[in-house]
Amino acid sequence: MPAHSSEAQQAALEATRAYRATQGAEILTDFATLLALPNVASDAANIERNAEYLHYEFKRRGVRVELLKIHGAPPLMYGVIKTPGATRTLGIYAHYDGQPINHERWTQSPWEPTLYTAALRDGGRKRLFPAQGEPIDPDWRIYARSASDDKAPFAALLATLDALYEAGLPLTSHVKFLFDGEEERSSPHLAQYLDLYGDAYQDVDTWLLLDGPVHQTRRPQLAFGARGIANMEVTVYGPERPLHSGHYGNWAPVPGTMLSHLLASMKEENGRVLIDGFYDSTAPLSASEQAAIDAMPMQEEALREEFGLLQTEDGGARLVERIMLPSLTIRGLASGNVGTRARNVIPAFATASLGLRLAKGNDPAAMLDGIEAHIRKQGYHIVRVNPVHDTRLQHPKLAKVTRSRGYPAARTSMDLPIVARVEDAVKAVLGEAPIRVPTLGASMPLYLFTDVLGKPAFIVPIANHDNNQHAADENIRIANLWYGMDLYAALLTMPPDEASVDT
Amino acid sequence: MPAHSSEAQQAALEATRAYRATQGAEILTDFATLLALPNVASDAANIERNAEYLHYEFKRRGVRVELLKIHGAPPLMYGVIKTPGATRTLGIYAHYDGQPINHERWTQSPWEPTLYTAALRDGGRKRLFPAQGEPIDPDWRIYARSASDDKAPFAALLATLDALYEAGLPLTSHVKFLFDGEEERSSPHLAQYLDLYGDAYQDVDTWLLLDGPVHQTRRPQLAFGARGIANMEVTVYGPERPLHSGHYGNWAPVPGTMLSHLLASMKEENGRVLIDGFYDSTAPLSASEQAAIDAMPMQEEALREEFGLLQTEDGGARLVERIMLPSLTIRGLASGNVGTRARNVIPAFATASLGLRLAKGNDPAAMLDGIEAHIRKQGYHIVRVNPVHDTRLQHPKLAKVTRSRGYPAARTSMDLPIVARVEDAVKAVLGEAPIRVPTLGASMPLYLFTDVLGKPAFIVPIANHDNNQHAADENIRIANLWYGMDLYAALLTMPPDEASVDT
Repeated sequence: MPAHSSEAQQAALEATRAYRATQGAEILTDFATLLALPNVASDAANIERNAEYLHYEFKRRGVRVELLKIHGAPPLMYGVIKTPGATRTLGIYAHYDGQPINHERWTQSPWEPTLYTAALRDGGRKRLFPAQGEPIDPDWRIYARSASDDKAPFAALLATLDALYEAGLPLTSHVKFLFDGEEERSSPHLAQYLDLYGDAYQDVDTWLLLDGPVHQTRRPQLAFGARGIANMEVTVYGPERPLHSGHYGNWAPVPGTMLSHLLASMKEENGRVLIDGFYDSTAPLSASEQAAIDAMPMQEEALREEFGLLQTEDGGARLVERIMLPSLTIRGLASGNVGTRARNVIPAFATASLGLRLAKGNDPAAMLDGIEAHIRKQGYHIVRVNPVHDTRLQHPKLAKVTRSRGYPAARTSMDLPIVARVEDAVKAVLGEAPIRVPTLGASMPLYLFTDVLGKPAFIVPIANHDNNQHAADENIRIANLWYGMDLYAALLTMPPDEASVDT
Repeated sequence: MPAHSSEAQQAALEATRAYRATQGAEILTDFATLLALPNVASDAANIERNAEYLHYEFKRRGVRVELLKIHGAPPLMYGVIKTPGATRTLGIYAHYDGQPINHERWTQSPWEPTLYTAALRDGGRKRLFPAQGEPIDPDWRIYARSASDDKAPFAALLATLDALYEAGLPLTSHVKFLFDGEEERSSPHLAQYLDLYGDAYQDVDTWLLLDGPVHQTRRPQLAFGARGIANMEVTVYGPERPLHSGHYGNWAPVPGTMLSHLLASMKEENGRVLIDGFYDSTAPLSASEQAAIDAMPMQEEALREEFGLLQTEDGGARLVERIMLPSLTIRGLASGNVGTRARNVIPAFATASLGLRLAKGNDPAAMLDGIEAHIRKQGYHIVRVNPVHDTRLQHPKLAKVTRSRGYPAARTSMDLPIVARVEDAVKAVLGEAPIRVPTLGASMPLYLFTDVLGKPAFIVPIANHDNNQHAADENIRIANLWYGMDLYAALLTMPPDEASVDT
């Protein structure tokens, strides 16, 4: 029996393992049912179907559930499990929406969950979902949108509740669920939901956010923070309509050239952002954060090999150090056409979609303001809608800028008693302590928990790092789904913070 | 009666004008039938239907026609009209293919020719095609792909042949037709066609290329040259697959940033191209060309107003001077997604479609080589296909470059006797001399006529300058279609070069 685990946790782990030995096929089939529901946040009808699925499944397991509604937003699922005698309330956050789809890049439909014998890039072959009792290879993968991000936690949670119930094992904490339906567009209504319904969560002592991948080395990790996020779209204008590139080429301004100069002025090829003050507001690392970074495994070489990169934007620093800084990514570029659809015209406009990831201390609005100031410094007059003819004739260079509101980064202290309990839960499952990650690269609205609700919040990831998160061919490795079940079982049966275990 | 015209020309003009007074509606209906045939050069089945339509229509007017074929290329239509007693053979070139379509930008389907009471941007309203005998407003416009570029010359030619035939008027020259089916992709097989079938055109004395718009002031023009063309597509690579911009943003290279720097290094925002030697091979202007340029009407202010441009890439020079130089246009940019489809990823690649317009003296291959040398100078290793994993790990920066072959610019002397005859034909129609344009901005494979067949070649445009050529909502003003009929009538009845007219 590994150290750091209570008897209740050991029993819970035996229960999940026994349960999936007999019910593994059913767990995967149920998971596929959820994955088959399209879940792009902008698709209101389907996002509702996802919420109703979760409402139904948690309700029939005895969870007191309610779908909260704000006009124009996906439902937020509230849920409660009351545990007799418990002194701690765990808040559990996950999100049921997924990233938008670029259909042509997917090997299969993202809404037809498909089982493969291995990762596609390793030659994985399609196979049928297993029949009841058939052995399940933990290296199999299910491909579907949100297979990892973020529906796997629902599948694991539901199966864990079933396993504990079937074994007659009680939880050791009260639990409150908060399931978000628009995390992938930066949870624009979550603050409003918490403003309206936050009282229902006031008694939560600690938040566990079930999201994100484990470490790239496949070792478990526990993350104490998340990057903030803010997006901006910039469109620059050439002629009012596309012009023949022969008649007007060398005379009419070319929006692609204008945009190239603007973007090149924002960031060096080596990764250094040139926006004034871009790095100034970033909070310094605490001693324990620096120690955690120093203890993290080296992975850069393996990642370069995996991603086919001889050169990175690292300036000599480690990946984990790079994500402690704000970043500026060109998420998209569009002007005219390329490939066989390219035409001999000077396009009328060129657009760049910019993505910012924020570090602790960076205010989203202030960071976007900094980019706007930079754009003005390059001689542009900024507008918020497509410029009308008269506006065009008043300014030599026009840029339309639209902004997301975004949200800031957040970090929770590594030195709270609950940290030891959560780390012990990981050890109970895997026999090794999780890597302490001061911040995940991913963005989550963690600040609402740490800064608005004012409670510690940790990110407890289960997905494989190579899950193609946010991209085509997203997938989950079955071993990681099983890890999720075990970890949640250990978390739901943690001893109280004040109790000691046999170390 | 205007000076400079022969009696035969005056009779021919009376014939075309009388003919369309009664048959105008039929001319427009027949034209709409041709416009309804999709004609993107890559659409082999439909391009064939266009060729067959022309074959049928010219044949039934007594023209000896043949559809020449090269495997993998659209047919080239050869045609002959023998004129008893004629001493001159006119070659007439036009093309029946059109630019590719960006459907979402069109107000209507590009293959549903539609009549409007005026230009759409001036509030033109849809109306039925006129009934036989109904008055036709010359300000009406037909919207359809190739309405101007380059099917209008076919409609005007066929109607002119009908008018002359109905009036019993003979031509004064032999005529040979050459109708191209892939001009919009730079006529990649025309040289091969001329190599195989050029003998049939050896007796042509002068080539008239029916293509392009009249001057932006709506005055007639005669063009003595055309720009050459060459295209290049450049793709630069980030990670081998799109990566989560949170986990890897600030570390994985961003292809949009790489491409921005590369493109910004190629050309200043003011229009100056920075490729080494880009301007060096350009032929200087002859005295008569310089005189023609000096005599051309000023138009820049009106064009800036029309296109909504306060600032242009002119470096203080006139538009006509700018098109005597080679140009570099970014025809398209693409990376990831923008707008509602934008996702929080670092895209795997970014692509730019580059369009070169060439001036006399610029060799297409050498110009493209210059750009490749520039790309290498920016640290890129150039590949011709998407790089495999091992290639990616051997080079810090990779660029895939694909090139069109393109063709050079050409110019014909302004001082040949035939020039006066052609100018007289314009005067016979409009009472004013055409503007002499040393080169059109558009590209046409004029060099095949001037340099390969070795004969003078003029571009005789009829389309309105605001026809949205190459873009969505392409259109022709009816007045310009009528001008085409009159001009072709006057050209087909020109006196011999040695004859003098009553000046």
